[in-house]
Amino acid sequence: MERAEIIGVGTELLYGETLDTNTAEIARSLKPYALEVERTLRVADRLEPLAREVKEAWARARLVVLSGGLGPTPDDLTREAVALALGEELFLDREMLEEIQDLFRARGRRMPESNQKQAFRIPSARFLKNPRGTAPGWWVRKEGKDLVLLPGPPVEWRPMWTELLPALGLPVRDYGERVLKTWGIGESDLVERIQDLFPEASREGVEVGTYAKASGVEVVLRGPKGAVEGMAERVKKRLLREVWGEGEETMAALVQRRLLLEGATLATMESLTGGLLAAEITRVPGASRVFLGGMVSYTPGAKARFGVPEALLDRTVSEEAARAMAEAVRRSLGATYGLSTTGVAGPDPLEGQPVGTVYVALAGPGGTEVRGYRFPPSSREVIRLRSVYAALALLLT
Amino acid sequence: MERAEIIGVGTELLYGETLDTNTAEIARSLKPYALEVERTLRVADRLEPLAREVKEAWARARLVVLSGGLGPTPDDLTREAVALALGEELFLDREMLEEIQDLFRARGRRMPESNQKQAFRIPSARFLKNPRGTAPGWWVRKEGKDLVLLPGPPVEWRPMWTELLPALGLPVRDYGERVLKTWGIGESDLVERIQDLFPEASREGVEVGTYAKASGVEVVLRGPKGAVEGMAERVKKRLLREVWGEGEETMAALVQRRLLLEGATLATMESLTGGLLAAEITRVPGASRVFLGGMVSYTPGAKARFGVPEALLDRTVSEEAARAMAEAVRRSLGATYGLSTTGVAGPDPLEGQPVGTVYVALAGPGGTEVRGYRFPPSSREVIRLRSVYAALALLLT
Repeated sequence: MERAEIIGVGTELLYGETLDTNTAEIARSLKPYALEVERTLRVADRLEPLAREVKEAWARARLVVLSGGLGPTPDDLTREAVALALGEELFLDREMLEEIQDLFRARGRRMPESNQKQAFRIPSARFLKNPRGTAPGWWVRKEGKDLVLLPGPPVEWRPMWTELLPALGLPVRDYGERVLKTWGIGESDLVERIQDLFPEASREGVEVGTYAKASGVEVVLRGPKGAVEGMAERVKKRLLREVWGEGEETMAALVQRRLLLEGATLATMESLTGGLLAAEITRVPGASRVFLGGMVSYTPGAKARFGVPEALLDRTVSEEAARAMAEAVRRSLGATYGLSTTGVAGPDPLEGQPVGTVYVALAGPGGTEVRGYRFPPSSREVIRLRSVYAALALLLT
Repeated sequence: MERAEIIGVGTELLYGETLDTNTAEIARSLKPYALEVERTLRVADRLEPLAREVKEAWARARLVVLSGGLGPTPDDLTREAVALALGEELFLDREMLEEIQDLFRARGRRMPESNQKQAFRIPSARFLKNPRGTAPGWWVRKEGKDLVLLPGPPVEWRPMWTELLPALGLPVRDYGERVLKTWGIGESDLVERIQDLFPEASREGVEVGTYAKASGVEVVLRGPKGAVEGMAERVKKRLLREVWGEGEETMAALVQRRLLLEGATLATMESLTGGLLAAEITRVPGASRVFLGGMVSYTPGAKARFGVPEALLDRTVSEEAARAMAEAVRRSLGATYGLSTTGVAGPDPLEGQPVGTVYVALAGPGGTEVRGYRFPPSSREVIRLRSVYAALALLLT
């Protein structure tokens, strides 16, 4: 398959001062096309390395997309680098210069000298208009290949790219993708359960990837649509109890939908997650339709205040405490369900229990269910996150 | 200057299903060394392209660092690719196999077949122990160069890398960095206040960058240590009221330290932040020494239950509501300080107030302070985050 090369330009991207999300978003936009994205690059604002990378990318790819480095400042060098890489001369495009000057006039300002460079192009480049900013893009078609320069800010490049992409006439492909999200099974156990499907998957050209997230292991299937659909169904059959959702779905969004259908309400009492569970639930717009409120019982005093029996205040890392917390908040806020978390987030053990010991409980009309976990050693934040999903999973699996 | 090449391995990184923050963090860790980072790469989980990229990187660089692709699954191919690129044979290291098996035994489980591949190495590779997971790293020293394989999860690779980096004996340089963190001033206003220092900074080889974060605008200074220190002090003088912290410091950590010194305690009641404020406070180890607990009053019923006066239940987006919430939770949990947030996170307006309208209040022995904000249009999550920092800032500025 022919290749697509995607390059994010900017020293700030290398060091993460600005998070490079452009290259990934552009890569996703190419999935329906028969182009291989083997790698993406972030390159510093330096002429020589940038020109070298563009030249290499151009030599090997059917499509090269660059984003960033089209600004007016001296360290914006993408135009110069591409000119070098393609062996063409930059020249000032009078027409574009006027347009940029008009843009400033419209804002009641004179165009600063420095912006003039944005009106330069190479002979084989066509400008891509940028209604959102002063930096026009470039579209170069040459030797049966395409090279596209986009500005860095998503609000500026997205509309340009959305309009241009179909016009490039790139080869399309039969492409499908499924992301199966599981809870309650480790990555290697999951692989053992489905690995006998791998040979057939690869025969059918279906890539199978598994990714361990705090919300559980995800199985990602990519390839010819029909084959992917078939394989997804077979994988799901192997993981009936574990798969809780697909694609962009989040546990919190599913929980909200589930509760809405049921006409039920939810309240939380958290110990080790310290508010993270309520925060995850309320991250989803419309949460107030099902989520009444929450309590963070971070000290024995608070637990007592929130209705946890005295006897449990010094045994907070226990099945009993989780149960009592869920039932107390359910009662106190008059919710259909009470959800609780307690355990040891670390860094230090608590009540003689090792870091990663976690209990979650769900109190409902039918009684109270408690689950205990012993998460592998990890950062305090990861253990808190896993506990949040462990609690939400009580409502889904 | 010699080069360092940093490669993030994983198809999920190309498409942003997992955000690649490793390559940037590794690049930052190399700043004190005289190595040029001209680019960073993300490469798909495919043997041939990965081997090609590693070979190219190895040919041009003094140091090559790879992270990811060391898992037990078939699409974890980093070991195989490096073996190919360096022209060496993989073999099973019995000693490491035992260690991994022991690791599973310690968790009361048998090692799945698939994990055996993690015990493979090439002759010129030394293993880097991974106390946090089953995937050991590799350190290859060959032809006066170093190549390092790190696992993907930060909690696993960070400790390995921190220990190994000084041992690599890389060429150092005179390098200093200061990060000044502010609250309560916009980026362009901040720049106007310090831009007269820029010419001298650049004469001294000091890079000055400003970055707008949810926790406020950060001023980053980089260059020769002495010059950076001097410039940092001068910038701080210009921003006396706004600078709340430096470097890795977080508002929540500072708040905890401040309260400990004061022997004071804190309790929270949250509306629009829905638990995010308590979660941020409890993210810091030892939070229970100062944080008593929190309430998420997400519905009028919950607010009433938590002691907010009836009269305010339908006017929750108001200075008065913020004040009442802070005072109610302070009283109810018997804390020195009560901290509250209320407002409109979006996507829709609330009580006729636009998205981004936020009130935060701090109730203490000396009375109650309320601050109102009108954050610019942004995502629900960003507005919630800004509100969390707005609340914490009440205890710092």
